[in-house]
Parts: sequence; structure tokens; C-alpha cells
Amino acid sequence: MTALHPLVEVAPDRRHAVAVDRSGWPAVWPDGVATPRTVDEVREVVAWAAATGTAVVARGAGSGLAAAAVGVPGAIVLDLSALQRFEIDADEQLARVEPGVITAVLDDAAASHGLMYAPDPGSVGISTVGGNIATNAGGLRGAKYGVTRDHVLAFDVVLADGTLVHVGRDTIKGVTGYDLVGLFTGSEGTLGIVVGATLRLLPRPVRVATAAAYFADIETAARAVTAITRSGARPAVLELLDGPTLGAVDALEGTALRARGEALLIAQTDGFGAFEELSVVADAVAPLATLVETETDAAASARLLLARRQALPALEALGRPLIEDIAVPRGRMADAVREIGRIADEEGVRIFVFGHAGDGNLHPIIVTERGEGVPAAAQRAADRIFALALELGGTITAEHGVGRLKREWAARELGPDVHALQQRLRAVFDPQGILNPGSSL
Amino acid sequence: MTALHPLVEVAPDRRHAVAVDRSGWPAVWPDGVATPRTVDEVREVVAWAAATGTAVVARGAGSGLAAAAVGVPGAIVLDLSALQRFEIDADEQLARVEPGVITAVLDDAAASHGLMYAPDPGSVGISTVGGNIATNAGGLRGAKYGVTRDHVLAFDVVLADGTLVHVGRDTIKGVTGYDLVGLFTGSEGTLGIVVGATLRLLPRPVRVATAAAYFADIETAARAVTAITRSGARPAVLELLDGPTLGAVDALEGTALRARGEALLIAQTDGFGAFEELSVVADAVAPLATLVETETDAAASARLLLARRQALPALEALGRPLIEDIAVPRGRMADAVREIGRIADEEGVRIFVFGHAGDGNLHPIIVTERGEGVPAAAQRAADRIFALALELGGTITAEHGVGRLKREWAARELGPDVHALQQRLRAVFDPQGILNPGSSL
Ligand SMILES: Cc1cc2nc3c(=O)[nH]c(=O)nc-3n(C[C@H](O)[C@H](O)[C@H](O)COP(=O)(O)OP(=O)(O)OC[C@H]3O[C@@H](n4cnc5c(N)ncnc54)[C@H](O)[C@@H]3O)c2cc1C
Ligand SMILES: Cc1cc2nc3c(=O)[nH]c(=O)nc-3n(C[C@H](O)[C@H](O)[C@H](O)COP(=O)(O)OP(=O)(O)OC[C@H]3O[C@@H](n4cnc5c(N)ncnc54)[C@H](O)[C@@H]3O)c2cc1C
Repeated sequence: MTALHPLVEVAPDRRHAVAVDRSGWPAVWPDGVATPRTVDEVREVVAWAAATGTAVVARGAGSGLAAAAVGVPGAIVLDLSALQRFEIDADEQLARVEPGVITAVLDDAAASHGLMYAPDPGSVGISTVGGNIATNAGGLRGAKYGVTRDHVLAFDVVLADGTLVHVGRDTIKGVTGYDLVGLFTGSEGTLGIVVGATLRLLPRPVRVATAAAYFADIETAARAVTAITRSGARPAVLELLDGPTLGAVDALEGTALRARGEALLIAQTDGFGAFEELSVVADAVAPLATLVETETDAAASARLLLARRQALPALEALGRPLIEDIAVPRGRMADAVREIGRIADEEGVRIFVFGHAGDGNLHPIIVTERGEGVPAAAQRAADRIFALALELGGTITAEHGVGRLKREWAARELGPDVHALQQRLRAVFDPQGILNPGSSL
Repeated sequence: MTALHPLVEVAPDRRHAVAVDRSGWPAVWPDGVATPRTVDEVREVVAWAAATGTAVVARGAGSGLAAAAVGVPGAIVLDLSALQRFEIDADEQLARVEPGVITAVLDDAAASHGLMYAPDPGSVGISTVGGNIATNAGGLRGAKYGVTRDHVLAFDVVLADGTLVHVGRDTIKGVTGYDLVGLFTGSEGTLGIVVGATLRLLPRPVRVATAAAYFADIETAARAVTAITRSGARPAVLELLDGPTLGAVDALEGTALRARGEALLIAQTDGFGAFEELSVVADAVAPLATLVETETDAAASARLLLARRQALPALEALGRPLIEDIAVPRGRMADAVREIGRIADEEGVRIFVFGHAGDGNLHPIIVTERGEGVPAAAQRAADRIFALALELGGTITAEHGVGRLKREWAARELGPDVHALQQRLRAVFDPQGILNPGSSL
């Protein structure tokens, strides 16, 4: 490696701090870490990397679950977390942000103007907006409000040669040129470094209402999702948890959720018609449910969502969770969950399932013993889950991304023609291959 | 030109029929027209074109306003209007369509399942879904439901060499690979031929409510848009018409709209909370308006929208309309309208303004005498309107596209770096440059 750029630190504690994300992928230290304070510093570091052929791994908060923002030997990690300025234009319902802004900080600031930044991944309190953009993060409100892509208007991007470009525009609509904003969203740091973004804000709903419906089994809960879809309601949140996950939450929180059923659906409606819409939801699920609780008060609503918010911590208390992230057509969710149960039995591993049911997005969580390395049975189970997702007409990753973890499966999902096309696209932006090599496609 | 493919017709009436779109661009006849009945026929024609280096211009209904789907000497037009099969999966809330399906036919079929295909351009009764995709068409419901891009999940695309690929997926979410669906949407037939699409359908709103608010001048109407934005309401439709346009509608329809004010805002709310949300809208605009009418009945709501639906026909009755399509930040709409008035005066042309105010999307319509050629003053006025849009931080085309009409201005809006990047992207998909050459970027 050539002499490092003055902004690149090599102290072991700095390199150690960026060696992993939250996926469980083994730690790999990069050669150095740059933590720019300004866009110009980002340009300087990337231009230096281009000139020296040094690989650059962009990193936000490192909360990713695909081993995309982690160290690579010979590479530097470009830590964008110090770029935290933002401003809100309440009349235009826009925010202009630097990439290191924490998602919840932005949403809280929007709230003080009666607005909301809709994408709310479970990691909203720790992840950065830049990381959300680069993964096209989803979240709980996705059933109604969509994913990060649906809320981004324009970016400032430092390209692989250090050039700064502005793509997209500050107007809600615009069709001049190809959709580069969509292309950068979800590109996992492989096409450029997002150093600024114009985001849409929406009116914060005047009220929310929440229902928790319990079912005898998860197949019935999946049928209830179809019943809600048919009812004409469009909940903002529609989350599904299976019995084992409820049991884990009970163990952590001292609740008795699993006594109420072997599956839980949590639906939240919002806006002017929230209360009426919730009663439509409740009526749709009532014939199938063992119990339906509804709340129209904000604090009580939040309490009903607690089981969902605590699902991952509860599983972390049981061992090491490997978090999968498939999506299937909504009508195939029951098939998916049944097959995942069979896979768990056959491989002798523990798999818990929860997810964003409104999008057909399931997170099967394989919980193994803590310690080094993923057991072979868990790896086999994960591979079978990916194969199942594709067989059911779904995807191997709904929102967490490909990263280093799912490259082979991504190639399988895309097929050789589209995979090759995608690689030619990547080469347009990064002919030297210095942006996050070994990750994504 | 080499011997034509057997599917290419050269009869003058066929070539004549595809020589223009609705932009007023002068007629140019292509060398031939192919009207495939199957996807295989599309592949055959494109493969032949690739082998012979023949240019291919895709065409849906020819309702475009950018001279994008029109003839080019030496080229063939690929008329996709015969590919009209579609099916609706009501449980998954999806439609699988061929590109030639007329937008309103799809929406009507969705309605019979209690669903809706949200994008509804003014041309909904004549345009094709394929054309809507290729232009990323907007529409009246865009203020709440967004544009075509927000409702497309997957495409079958015939690439420039005749290969058929499938991009995207049938699940609501998915992040495997770069967003090719977004890239093809709005690409104006320059990256591939869309021969199939999976589209999202949404629950049809249980009720709609409509307000028509009149104002003393258009600046006040623009301020009312900001007031609505601030109110927390999110109308599905928010349309603006200026006084001269109201006068033209009056002349066509025998109404007396202009007597009520020099500007009209039409807002429609929908969903469970439609009535309450409409009263929030009405309260927000009341202090600014000269008159506010509200309707909560569907037929009466449709009547209030009539002025908007008839705006273009009314102007067509006055002469030849040149339809512009800028967007500006919503807070700059009043400035835009004022400046457009000044441009009209200085150039001595008639300019009418209406548009999708919720998106800051204005359609200044320059009405000239019928006859060949665009008068120099009208052309100067159009150029000044484009320059104005960019000056106000907006775009030269919000939804109609670049086509042959706005290529120079598109290059100006994008700037040299991004323009060059876009052209490198285009070359990845079409290295020979046979797809709609001379159009778009
Ligand atoms: C408890 C928990 C719950 C979660 N819940 C969800 C959920 O509900 N939905 C969901 O989608 N995800 C979820 N995640 C995953 C993760 O939080 C998201 O992927 C998040 O978007 C990552 O943001 P980050 O700032 O941590 O990015 P990082 O992990 O640092 O990076 C992620 C990717 O983005 C790239 N990147 C980061 N910043 C930039 C930039 N400025 N420019 C270019 N590339 C960049 C990196 O190279 C990497 O490829 C969850 C994670 C945890 C730990
Ligand atoms: C009265 C009127 C009102 C209108 N209102 C609106 C409005 O509110 N919003 C709006 O956005 N537009 C509006 N338009 C413009 C126009 O209707 C839209 O641009 C529409 O999407 C064009 O559809 P089409 O089928 O007519 O496409 P065409 O005009 O035939 O083609 C348009 C473009 O799409 C490409 N194309 C067509 N089919 C395919 C395919 N299958 N694969 C690849 N490329 C393809 C063509 O090459 C061309 O570049 C209006 C037009 C009129 C006349």
C-alpha cells in the first residue's frame, strides 16, 4: 500500500471499531479509517484513493446486516458519521441532510414542525440516513409509506474519481434524464459516496390507532393479512410475530403474550380516518382471531407495538441471531412460514419468524449458540430459506441488502443476463473497481 | 436501408399514422411500422433491427407531448398498441399487463375488484401503460399517490440486441441489485422495449370529497397551496387553473367560472378520513378565497373537477396549444406564474397556466394560431419559461419528458458531468445507438 492520505488514521482502535457490522460476519480490519468533517474532505480522500487504487468502503453507523460496511484488507473505511448537519424546510416539506444524520434525530426534528420522515427501520435510533439510502432501508411504516427510495429527491454524490455531482432535483416531480437517484439508492456504496440528500417530509398523521390480533397459528395470521388487504384498509404498520418469538419477548419482558395465541399481528392505521379504518381492520380479522385488542390512544398504541420493537433484543438474549430478510408474494407467507418450520426441524436449528407482513417481508431468525463461526446446520438452513424465497417467487433480501453475505444468492436471483448488465452498470460508475469491492454484485 | 423484416409494413397510411404525437412537432414519416402481436414478434423485430443497424422508435398511443414516439427517417416505429392482454391478482393487489393496455381500461378493471391503478394522466382514456412507464407519467392523483414509478414492480424488457430480460420482482419490496425498474421507467424508449409489467394496485378509496376554491388572483391561490401544505392535510388531487384558462372553459362549456375569481384551486381528499380532511383543507384556504364550494358526493365531486378535465380541450378550441411542463419548488409557484405573465406580455403571446399544484408542476400553455411552424415569439417564450424553471430551482419537464423537443434544455438542466454520465449509461444498454436515436439525452 502507498503512503496513506493525511486524513486516514491507522490507530488500531479506529480500525477495530469499523471491522464489523451487525450481521455476525467475522471481523476484518481495514488498513485505515478516514472520518471526514466536510464534503471537500470526502472528495480529497476519494481522489487520493482513485489515484492510488485504494479500495474505499463507505460506512454510516455500521448497523447493517449484510456485511457491507465492514473492513477489507488493503481498503480504507470512509466513516461518514461525522457529517451531521441538516436543515428542514417546513413549507416545502423537505429536509436537506448530510449522510451521517441519525434517522430518528431527523424524524424528531421533523415532528417539531408537524412533519414526519416516514422511513423508520427498526434501527431508526442508531442508523444513519446515508446508510438508509445506500441500503434502501424499509421499516415499520413501510406497509403504507414505502421504503427510503420513496422519500429521496436529490443527492450530492462523490463519484469514484472524486468528482462531486448533484443528481435529482428539489421538486417533487421531474423526468429530465434517467433516474440516477433511484440507482444510487440501495447501491450499497458501490456507485458513489452520498454526501448530501434532499428528503421528502410528510404531514405527521393527526392520529394513530393500533390493533393487536392473536391467532391459533401463523397460517391463520397469514390469512388474516389477506383479509385486511381485501377489506380496503391500508394500515401504515402491519407486523407479524410467530409464537416462539412471542415466547422470547415474554421471557425478556415478563409479559404473557404467548398465552394469547401462537401468532400476533399488529396493525396500525393513521391519518384523519384512522379510527374508522382500524375498525375495518378489526372486523376483517375478528372471524379468524382468538383475541383482538384495539387502542386509539398514542401511548397505548406504542405499548401494543412493544412486542415488535423488543423482538430482536429478546432473541439476542437467547443466543446469536442470524437475521434473514426474505420477501414473498403476500399470499405465499403461510407457505413460507410452514416451510421454514420444516427446515428448522430437519436441520435441527431454532428459527423464529417475524416481519413486515404488509410487504410480505419475513425475517426468519436463526438463533445459534454464541461463539466463533456459523454452525454448518445454520448455514444450510439459511441457504434453504433463500432457495425457498426464490421458489415462492420472492427475493433473498427485501431491505437489508446483499453485502458480502448474499453475493452468490443475489447472482442466482438475478440470473446471468441481468447480473452481467448490472455489472456493466457498476463499471460505468467505478471503472477501477475501488468502491466497496467484494460487496454487493 | 436493407431489406425490411416481414413484420414491417411500409404502406403510406401506416407510416402516416405514426408520424406525429400530440406535441405539435412537425410530421416525420418513418421508413416502416411494425405492429407485433406477441413478445416473440417484438424480439424478432428488434433482433433484426440490431443486425441491420436500423433505428427503432417504440410507440404506445402516440399521446406524448415531447415528440418522443414519432417517425425518424431511416427508422421503423415499433407500435406496441396491439399488446393488450392483462390480468389482475386482487389478493396480491397486482396487475400483470402488456404495454398496449389503455390506462383507463386497467383502472376500470381494477375498480371492479375494489382496487385502483393510481397514476391517472389527463390522457388516461387514450394513453397506454407502456407509454406511461416510458415517460414516468404523472397525473391528477399524483399529489398523494405519486407518479408511475411509484406503482411499478417488475418489467419484461426486450433489450437492444433482442434479448428478453426480467427486472424487478413481484414482491412489494426487494433490494437485490441496482434499481433497473426505476432506470427503465421514464427512459423514453432509449434503454429497451417494455413488453410486460407488474403493477401495484391500491384499495380504491371508500369515499372522496372535493373542494373548489376561487381567488382574486393566482398569487393568492399559490399562497393557499402553502396553507394547505401547512394544514396537515394531504389531498389526493390539488389542481390550479388561472383566470384566462377559466375563461376558455367558460367559452367551451357555457359555465361562468371566471366570474367567481381569477384563479381556481380544486382539492380532492380521499380515504376513510376524506370528509374531515376536506374540512381542514377548506378551513385552510377560506381566509384567502373569494368563494369555497365543497362536495362530498361522488358525482358532484366529478363535476367540480370538470373545469380541470376540460382545460386543454378549451384551449385547443382557441388555437394551437404548445404545452409546457415545468415544476418548481411549491413555494415558488407564485413567482413562476408572475414571471410567465411578464414573458407573455413581453413576447406578445397568449399563455394560459394550469397544473398539478400539489407537486409544483405547472403547464404553461402557449396558444398560437393554427398553421405550420411555431412562431418565433412563441419559441422565445418557451425558452424563457425553461430558463425561468431552472432559475427557480425547478425542472424543464415534470412529467411529459424530453423527447426531441427539449434535448438542449435537458443537457442544460443536467450539466455536463451528469449528462455525460447519463450517456455512458445509455451506451451500456444500447451500444449501437439504435433505440430512439435523436430523442431524450
Ligand atoms: C436492531 C436492528 C434493526 C434493524 N431494522 C431494520 C429495518 O427494519 N429495516 C431495514 O431496512 N434495516 C434494518 N436494519 C439494518 C440496518 O440498520 C440498515 O441497513 C441501515 O440502513 C444501515 O444504516 P447504517 O448507517 O448503519 O449503514 P452501514 O451499516 O454503516 O452501511 C450500510 C451500507 O451503506 C453503505 N453506506 C453507508 N453510508 C453511505 C454513504 N453516505 N454513501 C454511500 N454508501 C454508504 C455502506 O457501504 C454499506 O454498504 C436493522 C439493524 C439492526 C441492528
Ligand atoms: C390531453 C392530454 C393530457 C395529458 N395529460 C398528461 C398528464 O396529466 N400527465 C402526464 O404525465 N402526461 C400527460 N399527457 C402526455 C402523454 O399522454 C403521456 O406522456 C403518456 O404517458 C404517453 O403514453 P402513450 O402510450 O401515448 O406513449 P407514446 O406517446 O406513444 O410514447 C411516449 C414515449 O414512450 C415510449 N414508449 C411507448 N411505449 C413503450 C414501450 N412499451 N417500451 C418502451 N418505450 C415505450 C416512446 O418511445 C416515447 O418515448 C397528456 C397528453 C394529452 C394529449
